[in-house]
Amino acid sequence: MPKTELSTLPLKTGSIYPAPHDAEMLGRSSLRVGDAGGLTQFGANIIILQPGAKSSLRHWHEEQDEFVVMISGECSLIDNAGETAMHAGECATFKAGEPNGHCFVNNSDAEARFVVIGSRTPTETAWYSDLDMKVCIDADGFEFTRKDGTPLKGEEK
Amino acid sequence: MPKTELSTLPLKTGSIYPAPHDAEMLGRSSLRVGDAGGLTQFGANIIILQPGAKSSLRHWHEEQDEFVVMISGECSLIDNAGETAMHAGECATFKAGEPNGHCFVNNSDAEARFVVIGSRTPTETAWYSDLDMKVCIDADGFEFTRKDGTPLKGEEK
Repeated sequence: MPKTELSTLPLKTGSIYPAPHDAEMLGRSSLRVGDAGGLTQFGANIIILQPGAKSSLRHWHEEQDEFVVMISGECSLIDNAGETAMHAGECATFKAGEPNGHCFVNNSDAEARFVVIGSRTPTETAWYSDLDMKVCIDADGFEFTRKDGTPLKGEEK
Repeated sequence: MPKTELSTLPLKTGSIYPAPHDAEMLGRSSLRVGDAGGLTQFGANIIILQPGAKSSLRHWHEEQDEFVVMISGECSLIDNAGETAMHAGECATFKAGEPNGHCFVNNSDAEARFVVIGSRTPTETAWYSDLDMKVCIDADGFEFTRKDGTPLKGEEK
């Protein structure tokens, strides 16, 4: 059955971010719709933000195109230019390699949902605009470091 | 600006299907959101179906994963299993190579919109479930033929 039975998908919570940034992801959860349907060429996830929650740390991707479409509620898109309101049916595009770090914040008093699509590539580096941090991803997994590649220390470890 | 200004995008109408099938696409239009944002790794289009319109001839892709999320109104997903109702916020996945031809039909009395994502690959063949027709796509363009590769003739030419 191609239609996704959303009620049967596990609600993914938590974060892969190193402390203390993992705590910033409270109120964010996701449904891995693409994986559930066996898609391998791109990720397709529903992101669910409770009031006050954010989608991610502000970041941009070196190699992977990213696309967002709002499906319910409203969010603020935060990027280098500031804040932009996003409502159901509206879209945003983030071309690979453009160093415009972005995230979505739910500043409303109701749940907000959007779909995020991201290409899958053998390797990827994502850069965090507001921190001295990047993440490198390959077939072996992922590693968060400072932007110069040295280990995270102190508060960011 | 990552947010797409949908009102500025040209509304794409018409069809690349050979006659008489092009006429079946009346009432369907699209906004090429991904292209407008410079995305190259996957297509991201908003499909707009007027009452009675269909999204495509029923088809499946050999090489390209496909993903759909409804953003407003309601449609019927038509596939080998029959009809399945789709409402705003609901999703469907079509894994590359699964020979389950699908399309979406708006049987309601209001406009319906969904986003469709499709991988981009150097070559692709799509098969039309209800016709003796396929399309082969490569860097030189696309060609519709019978399923055995011979030219379309008669009504399908």
